[in-house]
Amino acid sequence: MLKVLLSIFLVLVVVISIMGRTQKATVKKEKRVPQTLSKGWGDQLIWAQTYEEALFWARSKNKPLMVIFHLDDCPHSQALKKAFAEDEKIQKIADENFILLNLVHETTDKHLSPDGIYVPRILFVDPSMTVRADITGRYSNRKYAYEPSDIKILLSNMEKARKLMKTEL
Amino acid sequence: MLKVLLSIFLVLVVVISIMGRTQKATVKKEKRVPQTLSKGWGDQLIWAQTYEEALFWARSKNKPLMVIFHLDDCPHSQALKKAFAEDEKIQKIADENFILLNLVHETTDKHLSPDGIYVPRILFVDPSMTVRADITGRYSNRKYAYEPSDIKILLSNMEKARKLMKTEL
Repeated sequence: MLKVLLSIFLVLVVVISIMGRTQKATVKKEKRVPQTLSKGWGDQLIWAQTYEEALFWARSKNKPLMVIFHLDDCPHSQALKKAFAEDEKIQKIADENFILLNLVHETTDKHLSPDGIYVPRILFVDPSMTVRADITGRYSNRKYAYEPSDIKILLSNMEKARKLMKTEL
Repeated sequence: MLKVLLSIFLVLVVVISIMGRTQKATVKKEKRVPQTLSKGWGDQLIWAQTYEEALFWARSKNKPLMVIFHLDDCPHSQALKKAFAEDEKIQKIADENFILLNLVHETTDKHLSPDGIYVPRILFVDPSMTVRADITGRYSNRKYAYEPSDIKILLSNMEKARKLMKTEL
């Protein structure tokens, strides 16, 4: 009888200690994931933090700047982000030829909203600090918006931003 | 003799294949580490990306804003960052009571450089968007600079920023 009680006791101790460990593991999991500057638009790319910093890099590296306005809780932004992050060609040309900035908050520069404030919205700025309002997507009401299916248009606009810049400087 | 040659050949094949694998592993390791918004000032804290975003949060959450100017290649910034990230009290009060922003690039707002541009430099801004130029460290030539040994002064300044705000609103 004593043996039976002893073994029940031992089993209880083991169960409680395992439960304790599981709880600890759960608490540890609640640690926040550090925020990344890429915010999911390409962890392997180098992102500027602010518009001022991005303009500085565009001028000093003589590369066009690509500004992506988006929002975490906007499904259109999320869908475009997924397409952007998964497209190898886009990621490569972005890495090699552009200064990159993604913002969830508007800047004070109104040149970055030529036809209003909406997301997702992508603007190109050349190293002379001119916003390329002429580089647009395929929607006449929201000229700087792109859908995931417009990723080829975006790619060709990136090429345009790169070439226009080159011939004009 | 043939056996000896054969075994030497086999050993060579194995060595070469291992070398090949090691090289691959090295190439994989060159993957970039995603940039974090904390930049080492506290991965568990929530950081605003831009000054505009930080001001928005300060107003809407009615919390004072703490702006840390620093540079990656400045040893004084690095030393203060280490002290800041390792100080549990600072991290706790920062997490609970402040909107946080760390910048490696100046903003266009001159109110954030009341006595010039230098790093490290810490400014407090209250939710009414007033820069608290009265909250200073212990150096008369660089009023908003802190050394790692000044971490207690910084902590008491954080308390001051929190209390001043409370009585004034």
